[in-house]
Amino acid sequence: MKKYRIFQLVAAIFLLSQFSQFGLARVRNQIKIPDIPGYKTLKCDFHMHTVFSDGKVWPTVRTDEAWREGLDAIFLKDVEKLSVETWRDAIKAAADQGAFIFWNHPGWKGQQKDGIARWYDEHTEILTNGMMHGIEVVNGRSYYPEAHQWCIDKKLTMLSNSDIHEPINMDYNLHAGDHRPMTLVFAKDNSEDSIKEALFDRRTVVYSGNMLVGEEKFLKPIFDNSITIDKNYLELAGMERKNLQISNTSEIDYDLKLTKKSNKISVPENITLYGETTVLFRVSATSTNFTGTVDFELPYEVMNLKTEPKKGLPVKIKLKVKFN
Amino acid sequence: MKKYRIFQLVAAIFLLSQFSQFGLARVRNQIKIPDIPGYKTLKCDFHMHTVFSDGKVWPTVRTDEAWREGLDAIFLKDVEKLSVETWRDAIKAAADQGAFIFWNHPGWKGQQKDGIARWYDEHTEILTNGMMHGIEVVNGRSYYPEAHQWCIDKKLTMLSNSDIHEPINMDYNLHAGDHRPMTLVFAKDNSEDSIKEALFDRRTVVYSGNMLVGEEKFLKPIFDNSITIDKNYLELAGMERKNLQISNTSEIDYDLKLTKKSNKISVPENITLYGETTVLFRVSATSTNFTGTVDFELPYEVMNLKTEPKKGLPVKIKLKVKFN
Amino acid sequence: MKKYRIFQLVAAIFLLSQFSQFGLARVRNQIKIPDIPGYKTLKCDFHMHTVFSDGKVWPTVRTDEAWREGLDAIFLKDVEKLSVETWRDAIKAAADQGAFIFWNHPGWKGQQKDGIARWYDEHTEILTNGMMHGIEVVNGRSYYPEAHQWCIDKKLTMLSNSDIHEPINMDYNLHAGDHRPMTLVFAKDNSEDSIKEALFDRRTVVYSGNMLVGEEKFLKPIFDNSITIDKNYLELAGMERKNLQISNTSEIDYDLKLTKKSNKISVPENITLYGETTVLFRVSATSTNFTGTVDFELPYEVMNLKTEPKKGLPVKIKLKVKFN
Amino acid sequence: MKKYRIFQLVAAIFLLSQFSQFGLARVRNQIKIPDIPGYKTLKCDFHMHTVFSDGKVWPTVRTDEAWREGLDAIFLKDVEKLSVETWRDAIKAAADQGAFIFWNHPGWKGQQKDGIARWYDEHTEILTNGMMHGIEVVNGRSYYPEAHQWCIDKKLTMLSNSDIHEPINMDYNLHAGDHRPMTLVFAKDNSEDSIKEALFDRRTVVYSGNMLVGEEKFLKPIFDNSITIDKNYLELAGMERKNLQISNTSEIDYDLKLTKKSNKISVPENITLYGETTVLFRVSATSTNFTGTVDFELPYEVMNLKTEPKKGLPVKIKLKVKFN
Repeated sequence: MKKYRIFQLVAAIFLLSQFSQFGLARVRNQIKIPDIPGYKTLKCDFHMHTVFSDGKVWPTVRTDEAWREGLDAIFLKDVEKLSVETWRDAIKAAADQGAFIFWNHPGWKGQQKDGIARWYDEHTEILTNGMMHGIEVVNGRSYYPEAHQWCIDKKLTMLSNSDIHEPINMDYNLHAGDHRPMTLVFAKDNSEDSIKEALFDRRTVVYSGNMLVGEEKFLKPIFDNSITIDKNYLELAGMERKNLQISNTSEIDYDLKLTKKSNKISVPENITLYGETTVLFRVSATSTNFTGTVDFELPYEVMNLKTEPKKGLPVKIKLKVKFN
Repeated sequence: MKKYRIFQLVAAIFLLSQFSQFGLARVRNQIKIPDIPGYKTLKCDFHMHTVFSDGKVWPTVRTDEAWREGLDAIFLKDVEKLSVETWRDAIKAAADQGAFIFWNHPGWKGQQKDGIARWYDEHTEILTNGMMHGIEVVNGRSYYPEAHQWCIDKKLTMLSNSDIHEPINMDYNLHAGDHRPMTLVFAKDNSEDSIKEALFDRRTVVYSGNMLVGEEKFLKPIFDNSITIDKNYLELAGMERKNLQISNTSEIDYDLKLTKKSNKISVPENITLYGETTVLFRVSATSTNFTGTVDFELPYEVMNLKTEPKKGLPVKIKLKVKFN
Repeated sequence: MKKYRIFQLVAAIFLLSQFSQFGLARVRNQIKIPDIPGYKTLKCDFHMHTVFSDGKVWPTVRTDEAWREGLDAIFLKDVEKLSVETWRDAIKAAADQGAFIFWNHPGWKGQQKDGIARWYDEHTEILTNGMMHGIEVVNGRSYYPEAHQWCIDKKLTMLSNSDIHEPINMDYNLHAGDHRPMTLVFAKDNSEDSIKEALFDRRTVVYSGNMLVGEEKFLKPIFDNSITIDKNYLELAGMERKNLQISNTSEIDYDLKLTKKSNKISVPENITLYGETTVLFRVSATSTNFTGTVDFELPYEVMNLKTEPKKGLPVKIKLKVKFN
Repeated sequence: MKKYRIFQLVAAIFLLSQFSQFGLARVRNQIKIPDIPGYKTLKCDFHMHTVFSDGKVWPTVRTDEAWREGLDAIFLKDVEKLSVETWRDAIKAAADQGAFIFWNHPGWKGQQKDGIARWYDEHTEILTNGMMHGIEVVNGRSYYPEAHQWCIDKKLTMLSNSDIHEPINMDYNLHAGDHRPMTLVFAKDNSEDSIKEALFDRRTVVYSGNMLVGEEKFLKPIFDNSITIDKNYLELAGMERKNLQISNTSEIDYDLKLTKKSNKISVPENITLYGETTVLFRVSATSTNFTGTVDFELPYEVMNLKTEPKKGLPVKIKLKVKFN
């Protein structure tokens, strides 16, 4: 039976916008991650457990938890479909129904003692047959860099799910800013069809802890829509130090690292743009010799927005400086 | 000397956008109250104390505190101007310089044992001479309904200031969601001129605790820019109960009270739209007899957005219901 | 079937000191309520639900939650015993086994539309037959003053239970100082026999919100073991004001009200001794006429430690004052 | 002038137990560190700044802050005494008055660019003349291992002070469990004489962050008075795993590391006894071959209780195990 758990069969998406039918007059958190041009950013968790699949809570607890936390959709596993002879039958049955099929917890210790994700012949077989659409790059608290790389190389959808068995608060300190891992899905709207379309079209980003993992075309607009700088023009007299104010309206703390120093102005080599706050960004001339007005494009790497396992998102802070 | 403290003389506005010159690499809070059409919503405190005016901290502590809390501007009192013989001289000197003059803590216990604001002949004299431009409707933790009514009747600017003497955290539990009272100033930009223009033009709202006090023309767009409803069309089959989701992106909890019941649908008589969360809004038919589609404009009063001492802001929730 | 739920049949106490066998390396909260002379103060919840009794979590979630919160024991309902024809049979079967039998949620809305507890002939029958040992004075968030009075009049054990169905954090904001209702059991040790002995011997106090309900002989030592005063001797010169420091090591905020003023010294009429903090207690002479040394016993009522539905625990603050 | 700041001259201790004269009806935190046999554990900060010594707050703010945080005493620097020609005069004047003299911020960046404390000839001179009694082993957020070692080698008193200039909450997140550095003074009572006696007698421990620094004779009883184990006898059947519960009533998280493994039982190699909580301590037999009852003394090092710069306090967990 265990082998069947390698793949999660997607039968139906449970939309939390319709959760209202349960009628719980509870308060719902707002996850502060911006939309991107053309798409809504939906927050989803596609892998969790209830008493019907060795979890410890009733299914309604899962929808209630997820709604309160601000999630937009979860999947509901159709357990009936697993009543087949072999895992090959199971996957084929799912694929025949048009399901989105993904490999979950690729480094699961039940299968990989060292916790490192491994690719076997069976995975090649499934992939070749068009029956693997995505991989969990994050499962619970674990990030699998190998799985991240496979998604890039094999053009698979990146997923990030909680795989939660206990009540959510037993594993995540929600009241202290902690959150479950989520798959950000960029969809036209919050309907089931749009979510499935986005999944098959690989329009996802992994959100885990303070880290986002995904393609630059998604990470860049999230960063850009989070950040504003109060001005992009400064006058510097001599060795004077001035500050810009950078505001971040998202809940993510962006960790920036300067990738190339300017020989004219000194700016922070490392700076964290804390979520939902404004920080100061110091600028000063490196010498009193400069005159005139200069345009700068300061190159930073956002270390916790990963486009590859060891590569952060490149961004630029643009600045016009008049030296007096 | 005490009498001179009745009026605060405004000599200069200290703009916290320029606070950057102090170079403190600290984190700044974002006060979540939206702008309104045509104006920025600036958060200001025009009355606080330092060691130079019987307060207990150095002036830089005040600018540092205010910047961290997310304020945009404070006033700095020009103590030189008080070196005159009488309070009449003091006020006249200020007015001659074009200062914005306001009556502070009108119910101050040093003058009014019962804490109730009282209007004396001297106030009439000053007002008649065009030398009173505003009143502190809120000072510290106190709201003065008499002062609120005077501002309405005499067309004066409403102010809300902290009058803080101690380090701010000794009187306000900032980390637990508490905040100092603020004057919201609706200005074209965050320059000193724009702020003074707004003050003389009475473009302010009082923000104290979870209460806003001001004219409907300012309170209405703040409310409207805070609130979104996920849909405005519902189908109700028989006695079925359905929910809307109402999101509030501001930090204010809006307390709504239904002012007239509908005879066709049942909706909450009281509901709080908690700040930065989403809540459910239940709707059900009052009978199974209805058919067809009906447009509703549900009238609510926002109890904590006061247009008059005992009157809350009127708002409407619009809804189209199809009865099946 | 519903009628059977009127009484909870106690088959076995689940001791959380033995919870260690589950081996969860979790952190356990310390509930700060002192022991009393001769007994340990055990914190218990004898009424909660799991998926086997219309609750929404697996039983292990209940023991895990309770252990983390710092509880010492829960009951486990032996559902087998309910397989009898009538409620009379059920109660008799339980009594024959030596069970401790209590009436739960006496004002339950399923039975009492107005939420007020009512005593019926059946209760008299059960009580007369010695088959009712206690009543839930608190169930969930509800306190039943009628049930409290019945326990006093009929010498029954007072209980306070959560009756929780959801994961505990969905109904209680544990991280913000909230806690489930508990029955404090004064037992020789934390064995099952000692707990049952204490229950039959009526050695319990109800702990709900910031309120304790029980007999003076239990409430008094809890208060006394929580409170220390830094000194009990003061010298007052003229109208001088001095302060004592009162420390409270328990987690309960004690709300004290002066029941008789002294004509010689002025002390607080109302004071809250906040949990796990120290507060100041101001003392001053009411006149400059007094001389000599006087012993005071200041009579206060602890409003939230209820010995009767409308009566708080009487305590005295002793003080020797030398008037100079 | 700067040189005078090398040494802090102690003229008077400000006892916060007498702070009550200020009459602020505020709440005082309880710092949870136990007393030791024969002495009270007083929490002190002997180095802070006000507007009279380049700080940014009025002196009453310092006493108010310290009282609220639960401190027992602060020093007040007698600035008059500094009106002498040279630093030698200043120190001599202080010593002549019986002052307790200590070297503050020994690695201060104003003097030591690299932040490393250095011992100069002048220090030898002062020490030899009996005019150096202690050193700040901790100043603000900095711990100086060199200073720690000098205190051990030269038998000097260890101090830990805040050197705070701003309002305390600007540098310490008190509401989030952060605290200023403190000198724990083991005194007979909380009088000024007892504190001075303790300082000259070297009865202090440094408390900074989650670290205690001092002699074993003080650290050991603090640890012992913080910790209780629910039982010290276990029966193990075969490879069965059992748990002890270890409770820590202090606010310090103790980080324990096993220094020598037993060949009979397996216990945690690293375990943190979190402050004000209870944790589980797993025990299991390493083999099924053992029989009989064995006494164990499990040797641990408490890594954050430093008796030397690189040495933690040695403690033993005693356990009797019966192998079945």
